[in-house]
Amino acid sequence: MAQNIFDDQAFFEQYSRLPRSVGGLDLAPEWPSLRALLPDVGGARVLDLGCGFGWFCRWAAAAGAASVLGVDLSENMLARARVETSDPSVTFELADLESLRPEPGSFDLVYSSLTLHYVADLERLFATAHAALRPGGSFVWSAEHPIHTAPTSPGFIEHDGGPVWPLDGYLAEGPRTTNWLAPGVVKQHRTVGTYVTALLTAGFRLRALVEWAPSESQVAEHPDWSNERQRPPFLLVAATA
Amino acid sequence: MAQNIFDDQAFFEQYSRLPRSVGGLDLAPEWPSLRALLPDVGGARVLDLGCGFGWFCRWAAAAGAASVLGVDLSENMLARARVETSDPSVTFELADLESLRPEPGSFDLVYSSLTLHYVADLERLFATAHAALRPGGSFVWSAEHPIHTAPTSPGFIEHDGGPVWPLDGYLAEGPRTTNWLAPGVVKQHRTVGTYVTALLTAGFRLRALVEWAPSESQVAEHPDWSNERQRPPFLLVAATA
Repeated sequence: MAQNIFDDQAFFEQYSRLPRSVGGLDLAPEWPSLRALLPDVGGARVLDLGCGFGWFCRWAAAAGAASVLGVDLSENMLARARVETSDPSVTFELADLESLRPEPGSFDLVYSSLTLHYVADLERLFATAHAALRPGGSFVWSAEHPIHTAPTSPGFIEHDGGPVWPLDGYLAEGPRTTNWLAPGVVKQHRTVGTYVTALLTAGFRLRALVEWAPSESQVAEHPDWSNERQRPPFLLVAATA
Repeated sequence: MAQNIFDDQAFFEQYSRLPRSVGGLDLAPEWPSLRALLPDVGGARVLDLGCGFGWFCRWAAAAGAASVLGVDLSENMLARARVETSDPSVTFELADLESLRPEPGSFDLVYSSLTLHYVADLERLFATAHAALRPGGSFVWSAEHPIHTAPTSPGFIEHDGGPVWPLDGYLAEGPRTTNWLAPGVVKQHRTVGTYVTALLTAGFRLRALVEWAPSESQVAEHPDWSNERQRPPFLLVAATA
């Protein structure tokens, strides 16, 4: 079973105060880029892997999805998701993505936001996503970029008069323990090559790969994000089953 | 026209002394991984973009290719390629990849080794490669990895007791002037995302993406390569037209 840091009370309280936890998709700066990779969700059967507070589930339902199933490991997150969701086309399910078995061919879109870097068995999950989709269905996801998950000491340092990201361990795939919001959060580092290979091996066709960083206009509005353009924080991918 | 650093005599003399310039494919440590991405070249019509001394052209001819056309910008390199090549199925052509116009649909394999990071107009070259291939033909290439081309100061530094690669400027695409072998060598930095997007836009289907670094057994034989596993030096890609 995957580490369930979201049911660690200290972590959960910190996480709940992040801008994106308070303001949802509109305060997730990568959302416009991720949304641009989505197919039309009108009438679609949608599966959200790691749905958290259910922001995307509610967005998809409001955009006309026929049904939306949000899956998450965290009782804390689903409790709040249920309270905040009234649309009857949305349902939530407590489940570990490492052992999920959705009905084959029963979805038009599988979506996952910033969750895959917590999943240890990526190959299994990608095969599960492929089997869950009808032929031609879409798999759209974001994850922390491997450049972001790799380092032993993930934090900008000064070098030659400017900020640099001290990259090491990129080829050494496996767990990374960080102190993001709480001590001992375990993320899985894997390379971009491994993500792409796992997609192709599962039978997907790659449709888009975006190494996301805030745009120059986003940085102009949020000058404290400027370092994010030195290296991409997120990887966004769209693929077709 | 692209910078033709290979006809700079000082650069060329240094380049000619590199292990891979003396010993060819067998002394290029990424060659086994790149070869693994190739289709069967038996009977194939092959185009090599940036053929250099012609090592791959001769390998393909020896492996049974029907014809091999090697294209390069450098008279210096082609002069040596012609001297070292006796197989009549191999021909060489002096041409700038930025303005090349091969016969449409006339190749089964387009290959390029460590050349694309010198090309400014990648979109045009990928469209050219796609048009040159028959439907179903293969495009297999290597380039310096964007993590390698990005930094302002591309060299390992010590941080927290170990070597780190000082990554910056990853999102700032464009020319990088380095002093590799000679002062003022211009390489084009672009992201992995941009390489992949250019492939998909040109009409290719991605078949493989490898972030290559020496294997642990290669590092055991060449301990001075150990830093190369901190970040990938090369990107290897296979795509289908």
